[in-house]
Amino acid sequence: MSYAIGVDIGGTKVQFAVIDREGNITNRHRVPTEANKGPEQLMNKVLLGIDMMMESIDQEEEIQGIGIGSAGQIDYREGTVRYAGDTLPDWTGTAIKEMIARRYNTSVYVDNDVNVIAIAEKMYGVGKDCDHFVCLALGTGIGGAVMEAGRLIRGVFGGAAELGHVSIDINGPRCSCGNNGCVELYASGSGIARLGLEMQRNGSASYAWRPNARDIIQAWHQHDPSATQVMRIVIRALGSAIAGYIHTFNPEAVVVGGGVAQSGPRFLQALDQEVNARTSSYMRGCCRLIPANFGSDAGVIGAAAQVWHYGESSCSQYMI
Amino acid sequence: MSYAIGVDIGGTKVQFAVIDREGNITNRHRVPTEANKGPEQLMNKVLLGIDMMMESIDQEEEIQGIGIGSAGQIDYREGTVRYAGDTLPDWTGTAIKEMIARRYNTSVYVDNDVNVIAIAEKMYGVGKDCDHFVCLALGTGIGGAVMEAGRLIRGVFGGAAELGHVSIDINGPRCSCGNNGCVELYASGSGIARLGLEMQRNGSASYAWRPNARDIIQAWHQHDPSATQVMRIVIRALGSAIAGYIHTFNPEAVVVGGGVAQSGPRFLQALDQEVNARTSSYMRGCCRLIPANFGSDAGVIGAAAQVWHYGESSCSQYMI
Repeated sequence: MSYAIGVDIGGTKVQFAVIDREGNITNRHRVPTEANKGPEQLMNKVLLGIDMMMESIDQEEEIQGIGIGSAGQIDYREGTVRYAGDTLPDWTGTAIKEMIARRYNTSVYVDNDVNVIAIAEKMYGVGKDCDHFVCLALGTGIGGAVMEAGRLIRGVFGGAAELGHVSIDINGPRCSCGNNGCVELYASGSGIARLGLEMQRNGSASYAWRPNARDIIQAWHQHDPSATQVMRIVIRALGSAIAGYIHTFNPEAVVVGGGVAQSGPRFLQALDQEVNARTSSYMRGCCRLIPANFGSDAGVIGAAAQVWHYGESSCSQYMI
Repeated sequence: MSYAIGVDIGGTKVQFAVIDREGNITNRHRVPTEANKGPEQLMNKVLLGIDMMMESIDQEEEIQGIGIGSAGQIDYREGTVRYAGDTLPDWTGTAIKEMIARRYNTSVYVDNDVNVIAIAEKMYGVGKDCDHFVCLALGTGIGGAVMEAGRLIRGVFGGAAELGHVSIDINGPRCSCGNNGCVELYASGSGIARLGLEMQRNGSASYAWRPNARDIIQAWHQHDPSATQVMRIVIRALGSAIAGYIHTFNPEAVVVGGGVAQSGPRFLQALDQEVNARTSSYMRGCCRLIPANFGSDAGVIGAAAQVWHYGESSCSQYMI
C-alpha cells in the first residue's frame, strides 16, 4: 500500500491524517493550535503529529510524501509562510517545507488552506470528472481557489484567487484592501455579523442578542424577519459575485464550502436561484453550484492529496 | 524566412497581414466587412484576402500557418463561431477553420479578437518577460483575456475572461447578462454614452450634443464639467473592477487597450491612481497598469502570432 500524510494548520486546531490513494483516512489526530505560544511550539506540534502518523504505518517506505495546508499566504514554491496575520501570529516567515524535509526523507508539499481544498475536490470530489471549477470557503473571511484546465491558478507569486476581494458594491463600506464593498464584507462569517450588527444599531433588528453569523443563520432558518433581511443581502451579494466568477472562469462547477455554507441545503438553494438570475444562460447552462464534499476533513485530505496530485503528474507543483 | 498570415475579422473591417517571426508586418490589406451581405460573402472576402497575402510571399512553403481573430464567441477547438450577435449578423455557426484548411495546405488557428490581442502581447509586447497578465479591450463593450503562467485561461468551452460582466454595483442598472451594474455598463464606449445621456436626461449636462464616448472623452480633456463627472464615474468603476481582477489573477500587468483607452495618457494615469487606492499593496506592488502595445494592429498581429505561439510550443492550442 501507499500512503500520504496530511497536516491542516488552522487558527484553532491542527489536524493530521494518513490517507490512501483513494483518499480514505486510515488514521487521524488533532491538537489545539495554541497559536499564542509562538511559531516554534506550533512547528514542534506539527513535527510530533507527523511522527505519530509515521509510526502508524507499518513500513515507512509506504509513505509517498507529506502535504501541508496552512492558513495564511503561502509561498508554495519555497514552502514558506509569506504572511499569516492575526489567525497565526508570528507564523509569517516560517520555513515549513524546509523544517519538515530536514526531518523526513520524503517529498514535502506546502500550500494554503483553500488551494488544498481544491486539490481534495480535484482528486476525490467534483474534479474527478471536471477540470474547471471554482472553490469558495465561506469562513471568517472568504477564501478562493480556482482549477483551470486541471491546474490551480497561481498568479505571479501565488496570490491569485483572492475571491473575497472582488467588490460587488462600489458604494459599499471600505474594505481593508482599499476597495469598497468587497464580497467578503457581506457573505463571510464576519460580514454576516457586521450586517446583523448594523441592523441592530439602526434599531430595526428583531433580535436582542449580539449578532454572530451562526445565530443569524439559525434565526434565518426559523424565519426571524431581521435575520431574513440580513441573509437576503448576503445571498444577493454572493450571487452577484459568483455570477462574476462564472463569467471570469467559465467553470463547470462552483463549489461552496465553509461554515457559512454548512447550515443545510436552504442556503445553497437560495444562492443557486440568485446566481441563475444574474448569469448569462450560455455560461450558466454548463455550470453547477454544489456543496463542498469533505466538510471539516477537506483541509487535511487536500493537504495529503497534494502528494498524489503532484507526485503522479508529469508536471511539477510549479507547473500545476 | 518564415511568415504567418493573420486575419482580423471585426464588425466594420477585415484586416489582413503577413508577419515575420519578430512580429513585423511585411504586407497588409484591409476591406470593409459589409456584414449585412451575409456570412458567405464575408468568408469569400476572407479567402480572397488570404490569397492576396499568399501571393505576396515569394515561396509558399515559407508560410508557417494562418491565424484568424474574429469578433464573437469562438470555439477555438473547432475553429467555429459559437455566437456572433449584432456585430456580425448570421456569422454564428460559420466553420472558419474548416473552410480555410480546405483551401490551404497549412496550419490554421482561430480564436476570438481579445484572446489574439493577448497573444500579440505575449509574443511581442508585455508578455516577452511576463507570464501573467490581464488584457482589457475597452471598445463598444469590454472584452477580456487572461494569460496565466503563459497560457490563456479558457474555461470549459472557451468562454472564460468575459471581464466586462463583472458587477461593480449590485444596485446599478440591469445588464443583458442578468446581473446589475456590470463594469461594461460604465467603462465601455456604450457605457460612457449611456452615462452621458443619463446626465442629459436629468437636465444636469453642460453639453447639448447627443453624447457618445468619443465626444465625452474629448470634452473631458477640455475640462467640461459634465464630461468630467461622467469620466469620474467611468474611472471609479473600472478602477474597482481592475482591483478585483488583480486580486483574482495576481498578474504582473494589466494591459488596457481599445478605443476608450486611446485618448492619451491622462486616462491611464487617472485609472492607475484609482486602482492603486483600491488594491492591497502586496498585490499591487508587483502589478503594472500599462497601455496596449499595438493599437489598431493588435488584432491582426495577434491573429498571425497564434501560428508562432502554438506552433513553437510543445503543447497544442488546446493545452495552452
